[in-house]
Amino acid sequence: MIIVMEINCPEEQVDAVVGKLEQHGLQAHLIRGVKRIVIGAVGDKGSIQTMGIEGMPGVMSVVPIMKPFKLVSREARGENSVVRVGNVDIGGRQIALMAGPCAVETADQMYAAAEAVKSSGAGILRGGAFKPRTSPYSFQGLEEEGLKMMSEAAKKFGLATVTEVIDLQSLDKALKYVDMVQIGARNMQNFRLLQAVGRAGCPVLLKRGLSATVEEWLMAAEYIASEGNAGIVLCERGIRTFEGYTRNTLDLSAVPLVKSLSHLPVVVDPSHATGIRALVGPMSLAAVAAGADGLLVEVHPDPQRALCDGKQSLSPGEFSRVAEELKAVAAAVGRAA
Amino acid sequence: MIIVMEINCPEEQVDAVVGKLEQHGLQAHLIRGVKRIVIGAVGDKGSIQTMGIEGMPGVMSVVPIMKPFKLVSREARGENSVVRVGNVDIGGRQIALMAGPCAVETADQMYAAAEAVKSSGAGILRGGAFKPRTSPYSFQGLEEEGLKMMSEAAKKFGLATVTEVIDLQSLDKALKYVDMVQIGARNMQNFRLLQAVGRAGCPVLLKRGLSATVEEWLMAAEYIASEGNAGIVLCERGIRTFEGYTRNTLDLSAVPLVKSLSHLPVVVDPSHATGIRALVGPMSLAAVAAGADGLLVEVHPDPQRALCDGKQSLSPGEFSRVAEELKAVAAAVGRAA
Amino acid sequence: MIIVMEINCPEEQVDAVVGKLEQHGLQAHLIRGVKRIVIGAVGDKGSIQTMGIEGMPGVMSVVPIMKPFKLVSREARGENSVVRVGNVDIGGRQIALMAGPCAVETADQMYAAAEAVKSSGAGILRGGAFKPRTSPYSFQGLEEEGLKMMSEAAKKFGLATVTEVIDLQSLDKALKYVDMVQIGARNMQNFRLLQAVGRAGCPVLLKRGLSATVEEWLMAAEYIASEGNAGIVLCERGIRTFEGYTRNTLDLSAVPLVKSLSHLPVVVDPSHATGIRALVGPMSLAAVAAGADGLLVEVHPDPQRALCDGKQSLSPGEFSRVAEELKAVAAAVGRAA
Amino acid sequence: MIIVMEINCPEEQVDAVVGKLEQHGLQAHLIRGVKRIVIGAVGDKGSIQTMGIEGMPGVMSVVPIMKPFKLVSREARGENSVVRVGNVDIGGRQIALMAGPCAVETADQMYAAAEAVKSSGAGILRGGAFKPRTSPYSFQGLEEEGLKMMSEAAKKFGLATVTEVIDLQSLDKALKYVDMVQIGARNMQNFRLLQAVGRAGCPVLLKRGLSATVEEWLMAAEYIASEGNAGIVLCERGIRTFEGYTRNTLDLSAVPLVKSLSHLPVVVDPSHATGIRALVGPMSLAAVAAGADGLLVEVHPDPQRALCDGKQSLSPGEFSRVAEELKAVAAAVGRAA
Repeated sequence: MIIVMEINCPEEQVDAVVGKLEQHGLQAHLIRGVKRIVIGAVGDKGSIQTMGIEGMPGVMSVVPIMKPFKLVSREARGENSVVRVGNVDIGGRQIALMAGPCAVETADQMYAAAEAVKSSGAGILRGGAFKPRTSPYSFQGLEEEGLKMMSEAAKKFGLATVTEVIDLQSLDKALKYVDMVQIGARNMQNFRLLQAVGRAGCPVLLKRGLSATVEEWLMAAEYIASEGNAGIVLCERGIRTFEGYTRNTLDLSAVPLVKSLSHLPVVVDPSHATGIRALVGPMSLAAVAAGADGLLVEVHPDPQRALCDGKQSLSPGEFSRVAEELKAVAAAVGRAA
Repeated sequence: MIIVMEINCPEEQVDAVVGKLEQHGLQAHLIRGVKRIVIGAVGDKGSIQTMGIEGMPGVMSVVPIMKPFKLVSREARGENSVVRVGNVDIGGRQIALMAGPCAVETADQMYAAAEAVKSSGAGILRGGAFKPRTSPYSFQGLEEEGLKMMSEAAKKFGLATVTEVIDLQSLDKALKYVDMVQIGARNMQNFRLLQAVGRAGCPVLLKRGLSATVEEWLMAAEYIASEGNAGIVLCERGIRTFEGYTRNTLDLSAVPLVKSLSHLPVVVDPSHATGIRALVGPMSLAAVAAGADGLLVEVHPDPQRALCDGKQSLSPGEFSRVAEELKAVAAAVGRAA
Repeated sequence: MIIVMEINCPEEQVDAVVGKLEQHGLQAHLIRGVKRIVIGAVGDKGSIQTMGIEGMPGVMSVVPIMKPFKLVSREARGENSVVRVGNVDIGGRQIALMAGPCAVETADQMYAAAEAVKSSGAGILRGGAFKPRTSPYSFQGLEEEGLKMMSEAAKKFGLATVTEVIDLQSLDKALKYVDMVQIGARNMQNFRLLQAVGRAGCPVLLKRGLSATVEEWLMAAEYIASEGNAGIVLCERGIRTFEGYTRNTLDLSAVPLVKSLSHLPVVVDPSHATGIRALVGPMSLAAVAAGADGLLVEVHPDPQRALCDGKQSLSPGEFSRVAEELKAVAAAVGRAA
Repeated sequence: MIIVMEINCPEEQVDAVVGKLEQHGLQAHLIRGVKRIVIGAVGDKGSIQTMGIEGMPGVMSVVPIMKPFKLVSREARGENSVVRVGNVDIGGRQIALMAGPCAVETADQMYAAAEAVKSSGAGILRGGAFKPRTSPYSFQGLEEEGLKMMSEAAKKFGLATVTEVIDLQSLDKALKYVDMVQIGARNMQNFRLLQAVGRAGCPVLLKRGLSATVEEWLMAAEYIASEGNAGIVLCERGIRTFEGYTRNTLDLSAVPLVKSLSHLPVVVDPSHATGIRALVGPMSLAAVAAGADGLLVEVHPDPQRALCDGKQSLSPGEFSRVAEELKAVAAAVGRAA
């Protein structure tokens, strides 16, 4: 940690900072510049955070040097982690395809969706039963009924399943039916929910928040990991920017960046990121070229009848073509799809 | 709702959209432009949302005309709402001052804080007992113990209280000790929590999410209102932008904007918005000049010993000066502080 | 400057960085942390920038400690600068009102505008003769003809004038007719134009770029100052964010922030910042409460006939009311309007 | 164009809008909703823009239906445009590689750079001679001297050349030495410069502005095209967001999006977009997978001695590896590299 003092701050303010650092068992190194004094603090960062250095008189800014994430960091584990969901590995050589409708609507719809995504090579069926909707008047999901429909369809075709949970109650229900739970973008900093899925021990798909920095995203993963759950898959799904043509701005550079900072697998959701059907294919290929370990794609048996997100959902035929194109790109970067 | 069809889309795609609209009891008005067909749909918007028009072939975009919020909208209620918290009114002529430390730390600290903010004219004491922290290794709050400390200090000085809740459990506890619960920025779209505070019926301070649009913020309020709770106070606390000198960017124009769109009171948190002690005073004055109904200010008896946010906390003396300056600005815009 | 080395980087990489620093006449201070080596470089920052330290092997990041602006910094000059435009001072006790239409359209329009803004207390008439429009097919301004119209109207009412320049040619023309030239948001980093207005020596109104950080904005001012022109007034006009109800997001906290970092006067343009007529008044009051030295307001004799920005232009009557309300707010913060 | 009237606006305000539309030769179609009147205007959009409808009483908002770009739009030309630079085609089957140092420094450096990029398959040499730097105290480029160095090195290896121009003077000089001129991000809305390169008729590389929407970017291209210059190549180089680990956020979805809206070729600059050497390779592959027609990559013979941007520059060996990997990805999407 580097503490930058204000220009011409009195010596006793410097002494006070040094005193507080030493009192917490840290070493203080003074660098006297031409105009400024800078203090380097050496020691364990954990204790530094509760010291309140930033609020001390004469302190202009505090620059952290160490990254705040530990368990999920690349330093904690050199090899890539592989997370097993049902009989699918995420993070290995094979690109993991997770696909299905935005919302579970009917048993028939889920059967058709499962059949379609299976035939295109997906290993995991997605479908929402608890929908966090911007409007209280929008369709909120079929809840447990929906989980049953998804689970039955998945079993029929040998697929694993993933669904979003939004509170402790939906988590309890989801754990009975699915192989992996998803924390949505809006709940990325719902720390109690993160701790609960951490304790649950199940595989977790952790979406990046709408305006979460990469560091905050990894700290959210750290919440889960710190409860003893290492089965975390990160999902980049676009961040909020000023651009209005697309629903969000897909930050693909986050894929290689996160893989350099963390050992966790990273997948990409091109459907929510773009919100435009025609962009889902190109961005799926780009994601794999950038090093993504998998894709989460919205596929609906009949997009124009979808209760939500029909505009960004692929039809089974469209998904099949994308899955086909993925094979060549995956091979080009030493992966399989 | 306006439906913009793609250029040269076949007539049967237009017919299909019109058919679907009529099937849902809506009237369709066709406008044939030089290059495009545009369809105006007239009727109740609620039903439109579940129709999946956006996913239909030939549809380029759907432009909503009506605002999606209802109960909290200015159209639903012409006069300004006033929310009563303890014996303090928020939304009337008097500017409501809510102040106190970021986190409850000790009984002595809360006593000193309560004494200080009371003497400067604050009517509501704030203090965090359940802290949503970016890092699982940071101080997480004293929980029920902290609520007791705050409650006792407040009673001693005749102050009302507000504290953040982060899940159902903390809500249950908070309801026993405080007069108003706060939904923090990170939980603004934690819809289950919104529904729970809606059902609780207590006054709610709803902070704007880090990257929430004004419309999403009002929709979050609508979640609370739709459960029958009208005691909602909105709190602008800065949005996330590219600017790095300040912690967030305080969007003061949201104050008059929201007051034109909604009847709910709006307060401003200049502490979290700026993250810089020296900016809290000027932005407090600006907030009141812009029409804010109150302020939420971090005040700590000893900012340099604060366990969190010391850098942005005012000392009692600083708060006292700001409160004094506020009186003149409030008077200048026909209010009292 | 602080240089953070990568974890476990070999000692010779550290030596290489130290060697390069010393070769450029800087002192290197090593801080050996538990996991990392950090190097503090002490000396003149100018030379550091061309050294290419960031690209050296083993260097993880370089953290600048000194601010890069010099002439415009608060350290260079403790007192506030006052810029004289015609017979109007910007930066003193009196709030400077600059008002007029977005574009100069006719002599009659400018006469009516000048009369209106003068009678409400404005000292400077604004009007665009060279319009930087997003579309090449939009009205581009009356150029020299427009400057004459504005200049004549201003003389009639004893007003000073300000107009935007967009290249060397428009600068040459503007210098013949107006008292102050404006660099628009889109040209804030048109460095050649900045240097040209620097050499011209006339008062300059420097708008903040759409996505310019406060530091970049001050560096743009530094370009002008470094050519020997100290007559710079900064203008906050809103930054680009995700919020769509308003045209931009007015960053009022930039006003006290910039005034703490720089001695230059700061004014606010609430018209372009919000894009909504009804928000111009409240944000004008808020700007003055936040410490702004003046306002730049779009006023059109007949907003519904304005060739551009009619939606955000005040009528003479509306401007008169805002100017009246400003007086009380200015007085409340120890200023006059 | 759709005009949304305010709720309960008086009939004469509707009549006034209809009257103004008809007066400009447009047809007005009224849609009377349950609460609101909406007016559809049919006709030529050009004339609509100068009508000032937005400022009329009773008008709540105006929703444009037609895109504002014409010459560069996909509707104007169904096939993809191919732009020839020297003997290199941009926009055809072959991925165009443009590479070289951020700044021209010496003749030897340019010779080494040209040799390196040529041997890896690049067809176009880049190098900056006029550098738009944030600080007036940073290295500003070798100007004409630099252009000569680049030009000579390029000739030796049969490469075409591209360099940034920042004003009319640098444009004049560049036209003597290079095959293509670049408009940098900061000058994307320097409309006079756009018009000048439009009249110059040379191939233009138009970078996206730091916070430019896709629509504004295409409108900047329209400025060039409207002067009769069709040789425009768009370059996505990252947009400004809140994320701080990367220099900018590379918006790769802009590639397929722009290609659906426009017939112009699109290339990607992964160097400025990420600012991190290790991310340049993955994002280059991703760009080609997303459909980019080329890449603009910073390559320096000795990155750790680079006068600027050393942190993001590839060494010749690194570039050679990326170029090799590109071949497989290009083939996977039906292209060649």
